Formats: sequence, C-alpha cells, structure tokens
Amino acid sequence: MKKIHQNFKLGVLGGGQLGRMLIQPGANFNVHIKVLDPDPHAPCARLATEFVQGSLTDFDTVVKFGEDVDVLTIEIENVNTDALDELVKRGVEVYPQPHIIKLIQDKRTQKQFYKDHQIPTSDFVLVDNLEEAKQYTEMLPAVQKLGKEGYDGRGVQVINSEQDFEKGFDASSVLEKRVDIDKEISIIIARNPSGEIKTFPAVELVYHEQNLVDYLISPAHLSQGIEERAKEIATDLVEKLGFTGLLAVEMFVDQSGKILVNEVAPRPHNSGHQTIEGNYTSQYEQLLRAVLDLPLGDTRLRGRSAMVNVLGAEGYEGSAYYEGFDKVMALPGTYIHLYGKKLTKPFRKMGHVTILDDQEDKLIEKVELVKKHLKVITKD
Amino acid sequence: MKKIHQNFKLGVLGGGQLGRMLIQPGANFNVHIKVLDPDPHAPCARLATEFVQGSLTDFDTVVKFGEDVDVLTIEIENVNTDALDELVKRGVEVYPQPHIIKLIQDKRTQKQFYKDHQIPTSDFVLVDNLEEAKQYTEMLPAVQKLGKEGYDGRGVQVINSEQDFEKGFDASSVLEKRVDIDKEISIIIARNPSGEIKTFPAVELVYHEQNLVDYLISPAHLSQGIEERAKEIATDLVEKLGFTGLLAVEMFVDQSGKILVNEVAPRPHNSGHQTIEGNYTSQYEQLLRAVLDLPLGDTRLRGRSAMVNVLGAEGYEGSAYYEGFDKVMALPGTYIHLYGKKLTKPFRKMGHVTILDDQEDKLIEKVELVKKHLKVITKD
Repeated sequence: MKKIHQNFKLGVLGGGQLGRMLIQPGANFNVHIKVLDPDPHAPCARLATEFVQGSLTDFDTVVKFGEDVDVLTIEIENVNTDALDELVKRGVEVYPQPHIIKLIQDKRTQKQFYKDHQIPTSDFVLVDNLEEAKQYTEMLPAVQKLGKEGYDGRGVQVINSEQDFEKGFDASSVLEKRVDIDKEISIIIARNPSGEIKTFPAVELVYHEQNLVDYLISPAHLSQGIEERAKEIATDLVEKLGFTGLLAVEMFVDQSGKILVNEVAPRPHNSGHQTIEGNYTSQYEQLLRAVLDLPLGDTRLRGRSAMVNVLGAEGYEGSAYYEGFDKVMALPGTYIHLYGKKLTKPFRKMGHVTILDDQEDKLIEKVELVKKHLKVITKD
Repeated sequence: MKKIHQNFKLGVLGGGQLGRMLIQPGANFNVHIKVLDPDPHAPCARLATEFVQGSLTDFDTVVKFGEDVDVLTIEIENVNTDALDELVKRGVEVYPQPHIIKLIQDKRTQKQFYKDHQIPTSDFVLVDNLEEAKQYTEMLPAVQKLGKEGYDGRGVQVINSEQDFEKGFDASSVLEKRVDIDKEISIIIARNPSGEIKTFPAVELVYHEQNLVDYLISPAHLSQGIEERAKEIATDLVEKLGFTGLLAVEMFVDQSGKILVNEVAPRPHNSGHQTIEGNYTSQYEQLLRAVLDLPLGDTRLRGRSAMVNVLGAEGYEGSAYYEGFDKVMALPGTYIHLYGKKLTKPFRKMGHVTILDDQEDKLIEKVELVKKHLKVITKD
C-alpha cells in the first residue's frame, strides 16, 4: 500500500454522523482515526481511535490537533482554513485542499466560481445587504442565500415577490433566480491525489416542507443522456477546482432538461448514505480511499435503494427514544443507522434508514412504512 | 424496541476480530458495547465503547466485568462459565446460555450430546488417555481431538494407522472415525429469546494443509435436498440445545450424501465473514439482533461470494506490513478487512478478504489474485 503504515494517523475535523460512518469502514483498513469536535458526546466520541474535544474554528486548536496526523480531512465545512494552510506548510496532507474548502464555505464565492469557469448554474447576483437585493426585481421569483453559515435549509429564503423582501436577509448573500425544477439530483464524485476520478450514479432527492430531504431514491430516474451530462459536469467541476477528496454535487434538472449545479459539499453527504448498502463501495470508504491515495472503489449500484432520514419528531426535546425500532427491523432489506445522539429536538438528524428493493413500488411502500413507524420522541 | 434504552449496555467476552466486526454494525443500533480481553492491544480495544483489560477465565474478573451490563455475549468460547452462571443469578441476560457454552467448550460433551439427541455425527469413542485410545483399532482411520483447548487445527491429530498413535494425545479426548468427506459445509443459525429461528444459506469450505480455511464459497454447491436437510439438522440442534444466540454448525457431507455434524461454535464464525457483503444481514448484525431479542434479519444471499483468510506469512514475525494491499483494493467487488493486530506471526489470522462476483470462474480468479498479491510480512 502506498502510505498506510503501522502508525498511520488520519485526522478528521468534525465528529458527527458522517465521521462515525467513516470510522466504521475505516477499521477495515487498520487506520488510526483521530477526531476533533467541540461536543464531548459527539457521535464519533466513543468510536474514534482517538477523540479530542475542541473547537473546529479556533486556529491554535486545529493546528495542534493536526500536527501529528499523516492526512487530515473534514466531515463538516465550517472549520478554520487558515489553520489548515498552516498544517500544509508543516507537511500534513490536507484533503480537500484548504483553499477549496474556503471557496465552498461561502456560497457567494462558490457561485462566482461556477460562473467564471462555465459550470452551468442558475442566474444570480451577489449582494451585500437587503437594500441592494431589493434593486434586483428582475431576478424574481428568487431565492436568497446567506454566503456563510447556511445549513440544512437555514439561511435560505424564498423571495417570490417584492413584498417577500421583507423576510429577506440584510446580509452578504446571493440572490438566485428560481429554477423551474423538474428534479433535484446529486452526484458524489471522488478524486485521489494520483488523479483517479470516479463518480457514483446519480440519486434523486425528494424534499418535504422543512427543506430537509424526505427520502432519496437510487438510482435517479434520468434518461441516459441526462445522467451522462450530469457526470460530465461533476467531473468538469472537480477538474477545474483541482479538487482532491469526496465532493457531493447537488444539481437541478429544470423542466427543459437543463442541468444546473446548485451547490456542493466537500465531504460525505446526506445524499450518499444509501451507498453503504446500495453500491459496491460506500461514499465513506471512497473518501478513505481518496485521501489515502488508494485505488478508488467500484461505484456501481448493487441494487435499487431508498434512504429516509430519521428526524427528531416535532414537540419532543430531550433524551431520545426510538419508537417503532423493532417494527422497522422486521422489514426485510431495511437498515437502521442511528447516530448515537443522546438528545433529540424537532428535525434534528438522529439517524437514517436505507431500504433495498429492486421493485420500486415495494421500495416506496417500505419507505412509507418506515416513516409511519419510526419516531424519535422522548419518554417520561 | 424491546430492550434497548439510552443507557443499554451489551457486554462482550473477548476482544478479537469477531468482536471488532460486531462493534462495526453495533454502532448503528446505538448500543454501548463493553468488551473484556486480556490483551490491551486486542482488535476491539480502541473501537469498543468501553474496553476492560482482564482475564476471560478468571471468575472474579468476569463477574465484575458483567455486573453492570444488560446483556452479555461471547466472541470466544474459552471463558469462565461459572462466572456466567453467577451473572445470570444476578439478573444479567447471558446469551448463549452458560450451560450450553460449557457443553460446547468440551468436544467430548459436544459429541456425546449429538449421540444422545440423534444429531447425525461420525462414530466416536471417548478416551481418557493414549493407552485407552490404542485399544480402538476398529475406529481407524480416525481423528483424535482434545476435549478442550483445541482451536484452529491445534489439538487435532490424524490417526490413519496403529503406528500413528505415537503422535496421538495422551489426554482426555475423543477418537472419531474419519469421514469419507465429499464437502465441508457450514450453516450459521440464530435464535432469539422469543424463539424466532433463522438459518443462513450453507457455505462451502476449502482447507489447505495447515488445517485453516483456505477459502470459502457462498453459496455451497449442494443439491436443494442436501441444503434443506442441513438446515433441518441445524434447526433441530438449536431446538434440542434450547440455544439462544448465534451458532455456527460445521458439517461434513460424505461421499454417500449423508450429512454429519462435525462441531459447532456458539458465536460468530470464520465461515460467516462473507455475510457482511454477501447477504442482506451479516452474522454480526444477526448476533446483535438475536441477543437483543430484536426480529432476526433477512439471511438471503445478495450474490455469490468468496472469502479468503489473510494469514501471517511463513518466515515473518513482528510488526505487520501488508504487501499488495493496493493491488487488492483495485479489484472491483473486493473487500479487505484487517483486524488491527500489530504483530504478525506465521498463520496468524490478520484479516480476511471478501470477493463478490456472480460469475464463479471470475470469482475464483479473483480469489487466486488476492492470495497471490496480499502478503502479511514484516518490514526492516
């Protein structure tokens, strides 16, 4: 093997569920996985080979954490990229590269990159405050997104009419023309330092009103032409970025069949959970292979699958209790992944369920059963 | 769910690779897994939620370890069963039940159980020493097995002729008539406390001269009649034992098509490693489901697979180095599982590789490539 030696250490910034699902296959490669997270009860805390409690955004904490690792990666974007630059100077391999994480952290620079590099994306303007935004009535109906700190539907405001500007953000943001969406799809793509690139088949996302994924279907229902074009766009983007690591590329297919890049995440992504059971290689193992400069894994589908997020139920806050766990466990080809979070609150991502069934009607039936039975509540 | 609560603890006696592969899916159920092993560098040491270093055969150590867990199970048979009895008295659920572990620990009582309960097995006599064994010339050709402490080919001696008795064990043992073997197969079967029973499809084992599995093919090449009969025998055995947990039943199919139980292991087994990728539910998840009294998982095959053990190469002892790791990683549908053991020695089980390919000729081709490329050696 290229780099993995007996005392090889992989550092991971972020100790959430994405890190947890990285540690599970990571054990198969004998890799010492050292994780940094501010929460001492983070999902990775007890599973990581080594867990350090500390801030992901504090320069000194991140530098100190990363000093003794061979390769450093992330499972969350909101990290101190200056510290990553410093670590690169000190000889640590950091993937994705710090300047790309920085570019992606801000939706404004991300959008501008697409425009400057002929990556298809929706029309937009960058605005510094609400007053400025209000001048762009020709962009309506639009979506206003905060440059930074947006996550899981937060920091996004739909602006259908001039009146809606009242709900807008008075902050540095991007105002995007709304796309007449036919489908939302995602392609996960990996590139290793040797330059090998592999894309996963596209998946299709179905949202509910809280702007969180309701469920996901793999593979997406796309004509071969559109699937190929989406993969070309993802590959073009990775090459233009010079990106190394794992990138989730969220795209819209509009009513005319045009593909537009919405946004990207430079890490494992919610839209790739189902790869654990649904594909020959999971997105988590693929990230490991990519950052360790191993040959990338086989991304082919093993079968049709769906993924349902398990969210904290509305009206419950406190110690989590999983109602209907055994009912879901009794469904064949159904895989519950709980993230080890002690406390639930409304819409918190507490886990996910992957369902395998090559018959799509049965698959959707099981999705509905899972959503009906499995509830994250509190007890007493 | 039936029993799993926020502070639920599963105790595991033994911290080897079987425990390690139990912890990997165990994280998906939010179960606190507490592991006991004498080796502070055992494969589970860094991955377990809680790791305790201590003897598995010392009464006080095992009792103290098990006192605060909800359910206790094993990943190795050689544990103090008196301590397990004591823990049952104190209200801990112990699966498999201590008296069954005790019965299985000794190949003599195991064999006698088969005979007393009409479970088909090869003819045998129980002997207390070599002098006594020598009197049973009518059993030749035979295999002499130590009652206890036999493992992975140790404690087994082939006695083809009267001269061979010189190599025999002068100890409490069982002398078995050699079976004219057509195939060696294994069926893994689980039963939960509610009485639900599920069998995995039979797999076929190919041995090499060191008496360790060379590779394994799933599914076994059996007529439907023989497969059904093997499952009936495994089910009958589990019912007669009143067994709860996961049982690997190793069987011979003789030249006349008769099935004979060779021996059993009351825990995850080498012959079930390939279930991780090859079946809808892995043997490890099935053990968790069984001992936690959850509905048992779907045991169906997802495809044809093979499993190759990764053993320490002859002539190397010391810090392990995995030669050819990246070559194997480049083969599609190939899964390396390293067990996290720092030190290699000849024939030590250091890991395994599962290969998926529905075309059997290609599958065997990849088995040979894996065996050719992947070597566990030492460096410098």
